Amino acid sequence: MIEPIGERINGMFKDIRIAIKERDASVIQDYARKQTEAGAKFLDINVGTAAEDQCAAMKWMVEAAQDAVKTALCIDSQKLEVVKAGLEVCKNEILINSSKADPEALDVYMPLAKQYNASLICLTINKDGVPQDIDTRVSIAAEILGKALEHDFDISKIYIDPILLPINCDQKQATMMTEVYQQIKLMSDPPPHITVGLSNFSQGTSEKSLLNRTILTMSMAAGLDAPVMDVLDEELMNTAISAEVVMNSFIYSDSFLKAGKSMLTGN
Amino acid sequence: MIEPIGERINGMFKDIRIAIKERDASVIQDYARKQTEAGAKFLDINVGTAAEDQCAAMKWMVEAAQDAVKTALCIDSQKLEVVKAGLEVCKNEILINSSKADPEALDVYMPLAKQYNASLICLTINKDGVPQDIDTRVSIAAEILGKALEHDFDISKIYIDPILLPINCDQKQATMMTEVYQQIKLMSDPPPHITVGLSNFSQGTSEKSLLNRTILTMSMAAGLDAPVMDVLDEELMNTAISAEVVMNSFIYSDSFLKAGKSMLTGN
Repeated sequence: MIEPIGERINGMFKDIRIAIKERDASVIQDYARKQTEAGAKFLDINVGTAAEDQCAAMKWMVEAAQDAVKTALCIDSQKLEVVKAGLEVCKNEILINSSKADPEALDVYMPLAKQYNASLICLTINKDGVPQDIDTRVSIAAEILGKALEHDFDISKIYIDPILLPINCDQKQATMMTEVYQQIKLMSDPPPHITVGLSNFSQGTSEKSLLNRTILTMSMAAGLDAPVMDVLDEELMNTAISAEVVMNSFIYSDSFLKAGKSMLTGN
Repeated sequence: MIEPIGERINGMFKDIRIAIKERDASVIQDYARKQTEAGAKFLDINVGTAAEDQCAAMKWMVEAAQDAVKTALCIDSQKLEVVKAGLEVCKNEILINSSKADPEALDVYMPLAKQYNASLICLTINKDGVPQDIDTRVSIAAEILGKALEHDFDISKIYIDPILLPINCDQKQATMMTEVYQQIKLMSDPPPHITVGLSNFSQGTSEKSLLNRTILTMSMAAGLDAPVMDVLDEELMNTAISAEVVMNSFIYSDSFLKAGKSMLTGN
């Protein structure tokens, strides 16, 4: 079953940026509750550029969110010290977002994740930057799994992000990605999870929700199971549930949308 | 690009049944125009059980439709004599729907289709009935293509229908079908087209349009390119166009829905 990562508690959104500056916990908590009720398995927590002291802001956001919900938190920063600040105060289950695939990075992040019993998003990005083809993404994913074995890191707690580029940036990438997902899913048993920033695909386009639904359906059929996404887009969530029932993940009934939502929310 | 087959001129629909009985051509012609404007590449013409003299009814329906539009017609009957009646009067481009895969059936339908320069839908059904697994469907498809070579029948005019069963009948079939499509597409170059009765998938369910959109997107990604479908469902058609642009079939622009519709309608 899909594990949606709610994208909304992110300083790149104006209302979150203001809430961080004003330390208005109610805004964070409102999105924490709404996204949880919508079926988010994880809540992404990202300070963005909204604070001078990003470590303090991350701590405050994590504490605000976990005061409102028991939902797992996705501690999201490119800076190790900001991630560490979030980890120090987090009482909920944790997904770290993210480590690059350089051995030196994984040698820091994997032990750190283990220390907090956290899951870990690993980007298929190394010193050469974002790969543009299938083979490089797949071979970097294999290196990540190799490192996981070396660190005795549970593969089922690895979330590989093979980097989905916007359709208006490189249109041929979407079809390539489905092959990337399929190959990664075959790499181990149990396989790692696969995540991407779904909204990234449609950024700057005129039909965001439609394009998000289309790429989500195609990607889920190929193995994507933990997208960072707009869980408050009800049509998008219904599409995800519909994809699961079509893939026979749970038994069809006339009330499959309700049943699927119950499975996601645990209610 | 997808070649939608408009399903609406079919005696199983009450308004068409009445129109056939009353020989009211305006109903047929209205659906012929509306489906053409919506992007149908073919218009299915099926008498159903609406007439005692099905041959006469088929002739009348074909003549009514081609008086209104130049769109290719999909002459649809399980009875050879009814198909022949439609062929005799049809002036538009033709897709015959359908032949079973028994050698004796193909030896009749392939020469007949060639005689009228028609394309031909071939079901992966033989004397043993509807196959329940991937391998039997694929091997019957291979037999169809073998027969096409024997009859010097242009493979690009073959439309293979591997039989999509309703989700509430056998839920695990949908995922199997994507593998069937992929394997059939690899069988020859150029490959045959692949068709299914899309609405059949969701018949009797509570979320027809959502399930149709989901199965269409997944199936197109695997090779389905000529579904018999409800082309008057605008959200479904937008989903098809969205799937094409995600698969890089035409260049993305902010007006891709309009561009895709223009490609389908030729306007």
